[in-house]
Amino acid sequence: MNEQQIFTVLDLVGTFVFALSGAVAAKQRNLDLFGIVTIAFTVACGGGVIRDLCIGVTPPAGLSNWLYLLVSAVAALVVIGAHSTLMRLKHPVLLFDALGLGLFAVAGAHKALLHVNSAEVAILLGMITGIGGGVMRDVLLNRVPLILQREIYALAALVGATFQVVGERMNWSMLWVPWVAIALCYGLRYLSLHYHWNLPTFAVAEDDESTPPK
Amino acid sequence: MNEQQIFTVLDLVGTFVFALSGAVAAKQRNLDLFGIVTIAFTVACGGGVIRDLCIGVTPPAGLSNWLYLLVSAVAALVVIGAHSTLMRLKHPVLLFDALGLGLFAVAGAHKALLHVNSAEVAILLGMITGIGGGVMRDVLLNRVPLILQREIYALAALVGATFQVVGERMNWSMLWVPWVAIALCYGLRYLSLHYHWNLPTFAVAEDDESTPPK
Amino acid sequence: MNEQQIFTVLDLVGTFVFALSGAVAAKQRNLDLFGIVTIAFTVACGGGVIRDLCIGVTPPAGLSNWLYLLVSAVAALVVIGAHSTLMRLKHPVLLFDALGLGLFAVAGAHKALLHVNSAEVAILLGMITGIGGGVMRDVLLNRVPLILQREIYALAALVGATFQVVGERMNWSMLWVPWVAIALCYGLRYLSLHYHWNLPTFAVAEDDESTPPK
Repeated sequence: MNEQQIFTVLDLVGTFVFALSGAVAAKQRNLDLFGIVTIAFTVACGGGVIRDLCIGVTPPAGLSNWLYLLVSAVAALVVIGAHSTLMRLKHPVLLFDALGLGLFAVAGAHKALLHVNSAEVAILLGMITGIGGGVMRDVLLNRVPLILQREIYALAALVGATFQVVGERMNWSMLWVPWVAIALCYGLRYLSLHYHWNLPTFAVAEDDESTPPK
Repeated sequence: MNEQQIFTVLDLVGTFVFALSGAVAAKQRNLDLFGIVTIAFTVACGGGVIRDLCIGVTPPAGLSNWLYLLVSAVAALVVIGAHSTLMRLKHPVLLFDALGLGLFAVAGAHKALLHVNSAEVAILLGMITGIGGGVMRDVLLNRVPLILQREIYALAALVGATFQVVGERMNWSMLWVPWVAIALCYGLRYLSLHYHWNLPTFAVAEDDESTPPK
Repeated sequence: MNEQQIFTVLDLVGTFVFALSGAVAAKQRNLDLFGIVTIAFTVACGGGVIRDLCIGVTPPAGLSNWLYLLVSAVAALVVIGAHSTLMRLKHPVLLFDALGLGLFAVAGAHKALLHVNSAEVAILLGMITGIGGGVMRDVLLNRVPLILQREIYALAALVGATFQVVGERMNWSMLWVPWVAIALCYGLRYLSLHYHWNLPTFAVAEDDESTPPK
């Protein structure tokens, strides 16, 4: 596999696991067949659409390449069909979400760097590619996004995207850089879930008094 | 009327009925005059703005053509002034929404096909033009989008957009293709509301156990 | 300071106060360090990103200029560190929000007018630059946006953006036009909060009957 093929595969695998994550969430909310496919596709392609609009690539890859839609539909059917197998995994939404986070952060940073010659933009857009779909899923399902909850989430995507961009700027081999970047992101997210690692919070009791009136 | 004028009229009528739908929802939530106009305009132009950004048309039509803003404002005033007449219609939000869905899906697919030479992109963007404004309305009013509820919704937009794109690719006459496409979408949506047609859902009791912790 | 520098400063000050507003809201919701920075950055740059995408400027300024990220992070640290000082201000979220509204409406209208030769587009995009970040904050925190609540909000941004665009078209001096435009927007918003000025609403009791079924 050459370099471009590696990133295409990363992108499609990320699409599949994010679509799984979206389909599981949609199925748990009792949506119908089409709703499950729609949410799966939105979760899988939302972050990439934001990235492509920000780097001026139109139409965005998620719409112009039919493989993304096909992969999302297959993921939805897998969730519907292989329900009992998937449910044996504990917290499948969180696990698929963490893997998709790493794959998309790395593939997104790589694509952004190809189009915009700025390491900072590539790192930020890698993170946004990773977190965008999940944020859209949570907004559509009318709940506060996972990213706003306690465990380390966006930081993991930022670490993965940063490692990928540093590796490309250093001309390190793409045979290992993306895998390490994905592993860093997934590992950080997984460990923070497992050990309930949290970044510090700063709320104090007196805040209640200063809450603005609704 | 030539072909281009037909689609401009479709787009403006779609803007008007989606703006009516948005204004009724905003008025029911007790928003003020400016809030009603703002929501009406957002619902009416949201889907088209997403479509135009995705096909690289900037600034988007909803912002650059003052007619869209004027039509949205008129629709808001109609809702405020002709309240009792509108309320004699049962479920006016749902009816206006269904008509706007058809008009926008067809006009959106047509415009996308003009700018991006891909039937798949045109069909998807037609659907997104149709459902985008309504999804934005529901997200802003902090409720789970209609699209995620039981009756057939996005599927109706997909059917209308697909018929339009197939018709254009087959060089069928634009004197009848868009009207049939709109009727297909509206009819499918209306019948599914009337007879409570639903696509299958797949939730099972054991799902409750596997709900990830919030 | 030449004209361009004035608008860069306005934009950065607007970024700072919107980031303060976002960070205070995020801190009150008990988000962690990274969540506070992320929300602060989203609120500060959300409206500008929408504006830049709509005028075809990619990558958007919020991503390509590292100053925006730095300013957002500093604002988040200020909120975390200088908590008790900030809380002595009454309703700090609302006050910072009103100032950011004025700064962004004016700077956004100016930038849009540079890229799109249309007064109407510039006015609308100025308003959207002002309200976009706050709407994103409220959508992410899962509450109905401030803009939909009673006091005058989007109208204030519209007034500020309109004055700025009229001033530029009239070739009035940029030494005073932006400051007056900002003062108009901030003053209108502040007075409407202080005196509970509201635009008229139109809900009537019978609406309850016509609420569509959920």
